[in-house]
Amino acid sequence: MSKKLTKRSEDYSKWYNEIVVKADLAENSGVRGMMVIKPYGYAIWEKMQAELDRMFKETGHENAYFPLLIPKSYFSKEASHVAGFAKECAVVTHYRLKNDENGKGIIVDENAKLEEELIIRPTSETIIWDSYRKWIQSYRDLPLLINQWANVVRWEMRTRLFLRTAEFLWQEGHTAHATKAEAIEETEKMQNVYATFAENFMAMPVIKGVKTESERFSGALETYTIEALMQDGKALQAGTTHFLGQNFAKAFDVKFTSKEGKLDYVWATSWGVSTRLMGALVMTHSDDFGLVLPPKLAPIQVVIVPIYKTDEQFDAISAKAEEMVKEFRKKGISVKYDHRRTHKPGWKFAEYELKGVPLRIAIGPRDLENGTLELARRDTLTKEIVSQENISNTIANLLDEIQDNLFNKALEYRNNHITEVNSFDEFKEVLENKGGFILAHWDGTAETEEKIKNITKATIRCIPLDAKDEEGKCILTGKKSSKRVLFSKAY
Amino acid sequence: MSKKLTKRSEDYSKWYNEIVVKADLAENSGVRGMMVIKPYGYAIWEKMQAELDRMFKETGHENAYFPLLIPKSYFSKEASHVAGFAKECAVVTHYRLKNDENGKGIIVDENAKLEEELIIRPTSETIIWDSYRKWIQSYRDLPLLINQWANVVRWEMRTRLFLRTAEFLWQEGHTAHATKAEAIEETEKMQNVYATFAENFMAMPVIKGVKTESERFSGALETYTIEALMQDGKALQAGTTHFLGQNFAKAFDVKFTSKEGKLDYVWATSWGVSTRLMGALVMTHSDDFGLVLPPKLAPIQVVIVPIYKTDEQFDAISAKAEEMVKEFRKKGISVKYDHRRTHKPGWKFAEYELKGVPLRIAIGPRDLENGTLELARRDTLTKEIVSQENISNTIANLLDEIQDNLFNKALEYRNNHITEVNSFDEFKEVLENKGGFILAHWDGTAETEEKIKNITKATIRCIPLDAKDEEGKCILTGKKSSKRVLFSKAY
Repeated sequence: MSKKLTKRSEDYSKWYNEIVVKADLAENSGVRGMMVIKPYGYAIWEKMQAELDRMFKETGHENAYFPLLIPKSYFSKEASHVAGFAKECAVVTHYRLKNDENGKGIIVDENAKLEEELIIRPTSETIIWDSYRKWIQSYRDLPLLINQWANVVRWEMRTRLFLRTAEFLWQEGHTAHATKAEAIEETEKMQNVYATFAENFMAMPVIKGVKTESERFSGALETYTIEALMQDGKALQAGTTHFLGQNFAKAFDVKFTSKEGKLDYVWATSWGVSTRLMGALVMTHSDDFGLVLPPKLAPIQVVIVPIYKTDEQFDAISAKAEEMVKEFRKKGISVKYDHRRTHKPGWKFAEYELKGVPLRIAIGPRDLENGTLELARRDTLTKEIVSQENISNTIANLLDEIQDNLFNKALEYRNNHITEVNSFDEFKEVLENKGGFILAHWDGTAETEEKIKNITKATIRCIPLDAKDEEGKCILTGKKSSKRVLFSKAY
Repeated sequence: MSKKLTKRSEDYSKWYNEIVVKADLAENSGVRGMMVIKPYGYAIWEKMQAELDRMFKETGHENAYFPLLIPKSYFSKEASHVAGFAKECAVVTHYRLKNDENGKGIIVDENAKLEEELIIRPTSETIIWDSYRKWIQSYRDLPLLINQWANVVRWEMRTRLFLRTAEFLWQEGHTAHATKAEAIEETEKMQNVYATFAENFMAMPVIKGVKTESERFSGALETYTIEALMQDGKALQAGTTHFLGQNFAKAFDVKFTSKEGKLDYVWATSWGVSTRLMGALVMTHSDDFGLVLPPKLAPIQVVIVPIYKTDEQFDAISAKAEEMVKEFRKKGISVKYDHRRTHKPGWKFAEYELKGVPLRIAIGPRDLENGTLELARRDTLTKEIVSQENISNTIANLLDEIQDNLFNKALEYRNNHITEVNSFDEFKEVLENKGGFILAHWDGTAETEEKIKNITKATIRCIPLDAKDEEGKCILTGKKSSKRVLFSKAY
């Protein structure tokens, strides 16, 4: 397979699909809309998981596991939730197959029909709150701070690897609290955890805000979001945290006795990020040569490639390389020495460029003589000859520098693509020619939001938490507005 | 809820169910046969996962993820596999629900029927080998060493928490090799990984062997197993590794070009352990007072309980306790200081006994004066007063000692319950009165195996790898036999 990619400027969407497949991150499977996450892609996801899991535990959460299948009737218990989730879903109706008597292979056994259909979880609020009823009696049982790592299924009609798949992997936090204030505090805390993870690990700047009513999670009173900007000027919702009020407690009858001896419904939150973050990671940093990975999430941070002609040269270089490998690992740097003699250096260079390995070391006979090596940075595509002395320090510092550089580059791009507009013509013009986030006044109604979406395909990504009070007029209706909201086309 | 358990001698099965629920490991959900794994139980599973994952990676395996749903037709491709797995399974037939026009709530939308039914994976050989066809062309692509952590569904009619559930969590390794010898070597290597994990981490001795033809995995040429013995004298199959020959390669047309340029089918293995190990862990070590956990898998290895009357005493004890907590954590010992003032020490003692925390420290005002503390071991139920000096070393050594003690105790029990018999009467007598493993001669036929099973409910657990050559006669038919095999009733 050719390693050459379509250029972003030619066809961004095609470039994305090619990079995901050619860098061995994921591919389509024989099941419509469901992907196979390949080892290299999964290794990045594992790094994301490990870090998020650490952050969740540090903030007092524990993991648990709830059933994959949810009885249909559970969905009907929370009215707005069913409207949002029970529609496009995978329905289990039977529990047995049998051999066809007419020799047509295996068929569904009609005698094995379930009394009540089971839905593959699109999200787990209902089945979890059905358990919480048994777990919560008193204020002493609160807060209940639980997270689950799981697969979910939503029957999406148009799918794209990582960005929108019928099955995806995610984590879903579900917490229960004695007071409204504490639940809101938890919602905000987890939004901050997500923002910190996105910025410090994915090197992806995000804008924190709250969703408008029409963009809220089905069943939530408030949805907080972090919004990132991709290189094609479209936004991507990277993580949401929901304040659910007492909706699920009421639907599943979860009450507790307060310190004062009063019986009340429990307050809830839920929050999640998914393998969609993999798509965001690819689209934030990668270039026309392939994947670019922030060092903190790169499965391989440094690769060493030997340049040799004779066996003696290979042996001498290998001895030096193995020495470096040991030294790097001691520093916690993940390194691979690619000693395959079946592949040429040029082929290897292209391979690791495509796969986004942050640093590449090439070492040849002359380097051995001179005590040097060639060091290539994936982010800047620059090369330099450096001394072998203190090489592990050089590498460790460079990895930090690359992590920072990627964040700053993405931040600069993002900041250059936040445009304030004051009329609908200007709005359409920016959307058409520049893209990115647009800060504009809006009259606060769902009708106007809907109209703008129908005309331009742009949606309100969020009402930024740091939005300043500012008198203005709605770009569509001219009605009064007290702050600007963030519009964009989005994934 | 009362913390008192049914005694093992009264009703072993009831004791098991109670311990799982009362120690907060798991509980039944609203979905038939599917369990909720509670945080404490999940924390133990996470420790198992972390260690197994480390061992898999150390032996060169990578993780990946394949779809949850498998097209029905995939199962028909490998004849014996479909017979074993496609029968009792969850079948997805529709992809949408809708509001009933007659106001009966949400119903299945008959217009959203899938063209081909999808099966929730009971195991993933078929969907994985469908991918491997695309991944493997040359000997250079081999070996392919992949593992997946996933949930699977098998529609079991009679379920028990952890031991047999309709949905369970597991890992499934699926490897592809250029030669038969290499595939067999991999099968044996992974059996050894499982045995090492069971013995060194779960403190559960196992017997390594191969299954008889009738007990083999559907689609395997050889199934290797590790068999453990529970305290009620019944065996539990703790992990299996399968040599699949070229069966799946042929079914999914996976060929490779060898070094010599010849085209051949790929050789395969698969291997898995599941949350069933949680049941094995409980039944190997626990007693009438509750769970007993080997330190290497205990989420909390040491708990500190303050004994006090006044606030001053509480504060002084807390200062000392916090100091110990820091010291223990530095040594990698997981510790909890239970400073809740809402619960009495006696209540806490019972709680941690029930939950199997290996060591309990109680510390009161007199201990502060004397520089001592009370140390209680969960495995032996003994207490002693020890000096606070070097306490973290004392604890670290004791944790090792407890780990060893649990293994040795289980080993002694297991060894005392391997009985050689030479007649069918003797066989039935031992099975009835003593239980455990029975080593007996068998004529090697599936007919005899089946007859013995029908008469006694005992099955051949395995042909032990270390079985000695020994002339003998089959206990049922009197026909010639060259080695003894291992019988037992089993979970």
